[in-house]
Amino acid sequence: MGEAMEDNAVVYVGDKPVMNYVLAVMTQFNKPVSSVILKARGRAISRAVDAAEITRNRFMPNIVVKDITISTEAIPNEEGKTVNVSSMEIVLAKQE
Amino acid sequence: MGEAMEDNAVVYVGDKPVMNYVLAVMTQFNKPVSSVILKARGRAISRAVDAAEITRNRFMPNIVVKDITISTEAIPNEEGKTVNVSSMEIVLAKQE
Repeated sequence: MGEAMEDNAVVYVGDKPVMNYVLAVMTQFNKPVSSVILKARGRAISRAVDAAEITRNRFMPNIVVKDITISTEAIPNEEGKTVNVSSMEIVLAKQE
Repeated sequence: MGEAMEDNAVVYVGDKPVMNYVLAVMTQFNKPVSSVILKARGRAISRAVDAAEITRNRFMPNIVVKDITISTEAIPNEEGKTVNVSSMEIVLAKQE
């Protein structure tokens, strides 16, 4: 009846204070999952970097940045047009 | 008397409009250099991602993101204390 360990979790970073996302990342790692992906778009990208750095430096020194990717997403706006927005994914994982 | 091709150039991303940095990256690649490193701190990080994405998607499709690293820098503030600020480096290179 043992539950399989979930492989990874996603934390979407938005406009809330950075510590909300740090806490979300730590909660996921304590479930436990083996990796947590921070996803952010536009101006929230800097906050995602802050969340990753604060998690590693202050709370979970055994976490490493495994991969970072950037891309462009076409988001529909209120007028029905699409605007291009930069997005980023930071993959955090427990050190082996 | 031939000049050696410089290996890489650094573009520091700050508060100016993003197209300034796109132009700076393109100017460096046309010198030519083999890679350009975009460096940014704090809230300028999202702008660095924008600059990388716009350069690749709109102007130089042969440029690839070779590496992205994030770190924390201790910056002295006006009161003589140091504050921790996230920083990012995006290494852009011409596709082989």
